[in-house]
Amino acid sequence: MLTYSFEGTKESLYEHLYKCIRDDILSGTLPADYKLPSKRSFAKNLSVSTITVENAYNQLLSEGFIYSLPRRGFYVSEIFSETSLAKSGTKMNNFQDKSYVSQSDSGEVDHAVLTADFTSNNTSTDSFPFTTWAKLTRRVLSDSRERLMTNSPSNGTIELRSAIAEYLSEFRGIHTSPKNIIIGAGTEYLYTILMQLLGSNRLYATENPGYQKLSRILDTVGLSHIDIPVDSQGLNVEELKQSSANIVHVTPSHHFPTGITMPVRRRYELLNWAEPDRYIIEDDYDSEFRLSGRPIPSLFSMDMSGKVIYMNTFTKTLASTIRISYMVLPEQLAEQYYKKLSFYSCTVSNFEQLTLACFINEGFFEKHINRMRTAYRKKRDHILNIIKSGPLADISEILEADAGLHFILKLNTKYKDNELTDKLLNRGIKIYPLSYYGNNEEHAFLINYSTVPEDKMEEAIRIISDIIT
Amino acid sequence: MLTYSFEGTKESLYEHLYKCIRDDILSGTLPADYKLPSKRSFAKNLSVSTITVENAYNQLLSEGFIYSLPRRGFYVSEIFSETSLAKSGTKMNNFQDKSYVSQSDSGEVDHAVLTADFTSNNTSTDSFPFTTWAKLTRRVLSDSRERLMTNSPSNGTIELRSAIAEYLSEFRGIHTSPKNIIIGAGTEYLYTILMQLLGSNRLYATENPGYQKLSRILDTVGLSHIDIPVDSQGLNVEELKQSSANIVHVTPSHHFPTGITMPVRRRYELLNWAEPDRYIIEDDYDSEFRLSGRPIPSLFSMDMSGKVIYMNTFTKTLASTIRISYMVLPEQLAEQYYKKLSFYSCTVSNFEQLTLACFINEGFFEKHINRMRTAYRKKRDHILNIIKSGPLADISEILEADAGLHFILKLNTKYKDNELTDKLLNRGIKIYPLSYYGNNEEHAFLINYSTVPEDKMEEAIRIISDIIT
Repeated sequence: MLTYSFEGTKESLYEHLYKCIRDDILSGTLPADYKLPSKRSFAKNLSVSTITVENAYNQLLSEGFIYSLPRRGFYVSEIFSETSLAKSGTKMNNFQDKSYVSQSDSGEVDHAVLTADFTSNNTSTDSFPFTTWAKLTRRVLSDSRERLMTNSPSNGTIELRSAIAEYLSEFRGIHTSPKNIIIGAGTEYLYTILMQLLGSNRLYATENPGYQKLSRILDTVGLSHIDIPVDSQGLNVEELKQSSANIVHVTPSHHFPTGITMPVRRRYELLNWAEPDRYIIEDDYDSEFRLSGRPIPSLFSMDMSGKVIYMNTFTKTLASTIRISYMVLPEQLAEQYYKKLSFYSCTVSNFEQLTLACFINEGFFEKHINRMRTAYRKKRDHILNIIKSGPLADISEILEADAGLHFILKLNTKYKDNELTDKLLNRGIKIYPLSYYGNNEEHAFLINYSTVPEDKMEEAIRIISDIIT
Repeated sequence: MLTYSFEGTKESLYEHLYKCIRDDILSGTLPADYKLPSKRSFAKNLSVSTITVENAYNQLLSEGFIYSLPRRGFYVSEIFSETSLAKSGTKMNNFQDKSYVSQSDSGEVDHAVLTADFTSNNTSTDSFPFTTWAKLTRRVLSDSRERLMTNSPSNGTIELRSAIAEYLSEFRGIHTSPKNIIIGAGTEYLYTILMQLLGSNRLYATENPGYQKLSRILDTVGLSHIDIPVDSQGLNVEELKQSSANIVHVTPSHHFPTGITMPVRRRYELLNWAEPDRYIIEDDYDSEFRLSGRPIPSLFSMDMSGKVIYMNTFTKTLASTIRISYMVLPEQLAEQYYKKLSFYSCTVSNFEQLTLACFINEGFFEKHINRMRTAYRKKRDHILNIIKSGPLADISEILEADAGLHFILKLNTKYKDNELTDKLLNRGIKIYPLSYYGNNEEHAFLINYSTVPEDKMEEAIRIISDIIT
């Protein structure tokens, strides 16, 4: 039987086991369709608990390294078509993130009248570290006056870019120089910068269903784009290949809005698509909030040929009202950025850049993320429990609840999506169906639970079941 | 100290070193004005001969990547800005602007090497109201948590827009509703928003000489623009009429860079030009600092037919590193903005929006402006006095010194603008000629005195007169 040593490992047992198996799959030691040992026998053989094996298998499953067949067990996936292996290399030691949700258009909705808003991406007041932030702000204002008054380079202060580079290296396995990092006032702004950098004679491919705001920005600035369907493994690369798109936007860690994680095989197919003059924009919008298992490796970290542009934001992790996002450019694009676009002033205030740099450097950001992850997990478990133990249990299905701050709730209802959305809004429940994001599927709803107070959840779910039963 | 590896290099050592440094300059790793190690210590550190370093430095010098200051050493040039282009004979039209400052990647610019920088628009540390700002920030962080965490509408928080509306009404004769005010992270950002609002089938007219960054943004986003000459009364409206431009950008209160104030007759001519579907962008970038006489009425306040878009910024009045600007749209355009562009998130953090709103509402902004105006007037009088009472008196002429933070100094000199600029830089004086901004006039230099310490002014003027006499 397959065996691994746990001697000298500093990681958790499951993480170590996950990596051992993953590396053997990547190296080809474990071939496609190889049947893995059953959890129990494997655990016994390795002298670890069954839970350890289960966690490792779950992680491999969610990343697409293995697949399972009902009542038969776990098998190694066919990761590489031969060409993609040759092209992309096999660097897999990196980890990633994600973080979006529908952003409110005017922000002027009167939230007070709602019982529960499952569409909001506001950050709740009790989750922001006000005391620490106030302390760091005070210190920056008193100790860093010279730096506060010195104009930042176009791509941001060296303090914040260095802090982000270290953070990415330590927590996401992305090793990059601060000079490849561009800081901007929100991802939307960075998209417009990226569009200017990549030039106007581009055809953008966007996920369908997907992040609608990107399509809207492309329309507004007058750039062409096409929809590429998302199947059960994420963006359909075959369809992408048949298009003449040369830029593609994806959310591989946690597809918005369906919540799918793109399996590793699909990732390599996508990387393989990225020939010269093609780029992949990896939107990693809420990866910090993967609530079960390990973070999913980023496309950026798997890419050996400088074709992936990595985007992330602090609006999900810190506060939606602090407008700080960043992108990591491949070396070559970074050089073009300096030549072509560094005449732009940085859009983020020095005051907040320097405060955030301290926040990251002194470990507060990591603590904050951990605290938030725990809080969100608790919240998610709470609402899942309410759904599963109440009248909705028999007339609904929960999908993709492992990652990020939303999951999909499929409802067995006679109402059309528009009707139900209206009826719910009249009862104080704001919710968007998947069909709002371009998907054909009816009756599937996004449950963004992150800002709904726990004590409102029971009532909200009761109202939903009242209406559809 | 800077270090490079020579391992495996096949080129000569000096060539390798030259390339390493050059690449770091091109990528921004070595920022403008970065002081390179002395030849001897660098050679010792790299274990190569001093000749190797000397050859590499000479190569970089001759190609303009670095510059030297006598008895001080070698420094990285600002290669992405005007100096290098001027040196290579390229027309300067693509460059620079009223808000430019030497930018560095690392933030390690050693301004100490310059005796006086007459080109900087950094706000000096002693002019920012740190104590008041810290107090207000603390209060906002403790009292306005709910508001801080509530996403602002696309055009900014109602608090800040109301404060600006009141300020404009009281001090600028502009009476508008907060709903017509759009807040954004810097005027450059607002220009890109405005370009999206006005649509792509537009021909922009820009002042020549003028704010070159606008032309650069137009080029970058792919919009057409033409130069309209500026005469002694500002933009030549007759020439504008003969063009097919339908949008014009002007700086009527204080033309950049010449400092001309547009007389009222010309203003009405310009307003008359604005037929349906034509718009005037009024950039009022430093009107608060009119140092003699009354403030000039804004075009916006003279306009009866909704054709003027008013732009202003807090980067001049408060701090160049706090990225908050705003524009006031005519009613009809504001409505289009809501329909077409309000899906964008606001680019300014709530934290700074709310702090600034308090700062304005409680009278601190007005006090600050008054204090700054007095300080700038004193500074201006000081430098004018030095010029008028010294050897420059007979060989120079001072133009447009009533308004804003810069004036024009015409020098009677045999040197061409490029030569003189270089000579001055070698002596630690950084200064730009008007010809950098598209003007044909030689020997006229912008003196932006606002950040030059008073005790350096005498020395700076002495150096200028030493060189030209």
